[in-house]
Amino acid sequence: MSPFEPKQEAEPAGTSLRQPLKEYIAEISSLVMSELEAALPGEWSVPGNLKDAMNYSLQAGGKRLRPLLVIAACEALGGSRQAALPVAAAIEMVHTYSLIHDDLPAMDNDDYRRGKLTNHKVYGEATAILAGDALLTHAFYSVVQASRKHGVPAEHALSVVEDLAEMAGPRGMVGGQIADMEGEQGLTSLEQLQYIHRHKTGDLIVFSLTAGGRIAGADSRQLEALRDFGTHIGLAFQIQDDILDLVGDEGKLGKKTGSDLKQQKVTYPYFIGLDASRDEVKRLTEAARSAVLEGGFQDNTRLLDIADYLMKRDH
Amino acid sequence: MSPFEPKQEAEPAGTSLRQPLKEYIAEISSLVMSELEAALPGEWSVPGNLKDAMNYSLQAGGKRLRPLLVIAACEALGGSRQAALPVAAAIEMVHTYSLIHDDLPAMDNDDYRRGKLTNHKVYGEATAILAGDALLTHAFYSVVQASRKHGVPAEHALSVVEDLAEMAGPRGMVGGQIADMEGEQGLTSLEQLQYIHRHKTGDLIVFSLTAGGRIAGADSRQLEALRDFGTHIGLAFQIQDDILDLVGDEGKLGKKTGSDLKQQKVTYPYFIGLDASRDEVKRLTEAARSAVLEGGFQDNTRLLDIADYLMKRDH
Repeated sequence: MSPFEPKQEAEPAGTSLRQPLKEYIAEISSLVMSELEAALPGEWSVPGNLKDAMNYSLQAGGKRLRPLLVIAACEALGGSRQAALPVAAAIEMVHTYSLIHDDLPAMDNDDYRRGKLTNHKVYGEATAILAGDALLTHAFYSVVQASRKHGVPAEHALSVVEDLAEMAGPRGMVGGQIADMEGEQGLTSLEQLQYIHRHKTGDLIVFSLTAGGRIAGADSRQLEALRDFGTHIGLAFQIQDDILDLVGDEGKLGKKTGSDLKQQKVTYPYFIGLDASRDEVKRLTEAARSAVLEGGFQDNTRLLDIADYLMKRDH
Repeated sequence: MSPFEPKQEAEPAGTSLRQPLKEYIAEISSLVMSELEAALPGEWSVPGNLKDAMNYSLQAGGKRLRPLLVIAACEALGGSRQAALPVAAAIEMVHTYSLIHDDLPAMDNDDYRRGKLTNHKVYGEATAILAGDALLTHAFYSVVQASRKHGVPAEHALSVVEDLAEMAGPRGMVGGQIADMEGEQGLTSLEQLQYIHRHKTGDLIVFSLTAGGRIAGADSRQLEALRDFGTHIGLAFQIQDDILDLVGDEGKLGKKTGSDLKQQKVTYPYFIGLDASRDEVKRLTEAARSAVLEGGFQDNTRLLDIADYLMKRDH
């Protein structure tokens, strides 16, 4: 419960849903930050500035969307927020490692991300590569802690490890990055763009939801619903990104619009136009809502709110 | 059993030990190669040349020492070789990823490894970074398959995941690489060199042994013995490397000697001299043998043979 909300006696079931989504997001974000800090403890003896480099990018902000999905999915099934936190931290480590490696000179060669210097601009390329490697490796350690510290059954934690390795690996996110890199030489079909969106960003979103579900002990029907929900909001999220890059408000986005055009990056609106892209976001959001409504969850309001929030976001 | 050895009726216990070590090593190496091929199956739909880049370095040869240790430790405790193979493949993936990233221009900037072009010289830097990332991630998937395909209890497989994440992560191998990188600006103490040896190479060797033990269901005393054995042979292995670089036979090594001197790389002989380094290898090998002899294993001959073999190797 948010510290801003007065505690009430005899609250009806589902009362936590009265907490506005914005507060819920802020609360989860703050808990995830604490979990990330605890995951790289001060007493760790790690040489040089490896830990600084890891922390620099972990603390560089961002939406914390993936950890939010882990917690929301877990809580939708009545699972423990505490038990989900190490997995929420893990997915943020994986997301962060992917950004560090993506920004490297050999890849996108970006000097800034979210208004801050990229990892290799601060710590040098070698340390940035190793900080990414260390975050990816340590993510798996963090997943195991859900079992060690919060009693998640080993069988469930092992399934989370398996899913993470699959969704972040060669058939998942890394495959999406390779496709994106090759696509920079010119995408010729919407199918290619969908492959990139599905794997480069979609797979970690799907993972976040099913991992939260697994921590809560989801059955196969619930896992399938979470997978559907994730697939749909994952693609909607990317199309919305493409739209915002075209017509978004630079002040709200915190970055220049039109960068896709300038970089001659092929996007959803390029293939099907702006209006059809907006319709597709709506259609996907509806499909995501249906998946959740039919998933047999204990409490689906938060996931429905998140789907709406992502569709309507302006940054 | 080796295909070169005639099958005998009513073999006495421990008869597999009659197979010469050299044949045992060749047999394990061939099984690990098959396991690695099966781990990246042909029907996988992975874009571009990501899979080729992964396979290129996996198949580039090397001693396959780490997989050998996984299998030997597992068999020393009466465990199943089949169940240990996915973990043996996993450690080879992790070792291979570390070499790919280590060779990058931003790191050691090597054009050749084991007489073949390095990964980034063949596939380009971006793909090499991603192939390394994919191998590291897929290693965790492979560990889980020991449970999925060979019935290793989830609790044991999860411990292997935890150990791998710890020993290959920021407090383990990656920490050793950072220390090594910084050491290139000049090491001033034997302690610093020991830190690098212990983490950069030692930790994966220790992991290989305890992982094999965990697959076989080792108790805490046996795990401790495997850890001791690994710590000692790991350091002995590195000191022997340093010695061979000074006085080895270039024909047998397959590389030029004296490269440490030329690169002004500080080594064990630099700090304590050649004779004392040789004595240290002997002392560590004896300590490793003692750990195994007191470990309460079902069959310790193979591990003892491996310790001797590593000490006496000339390449």
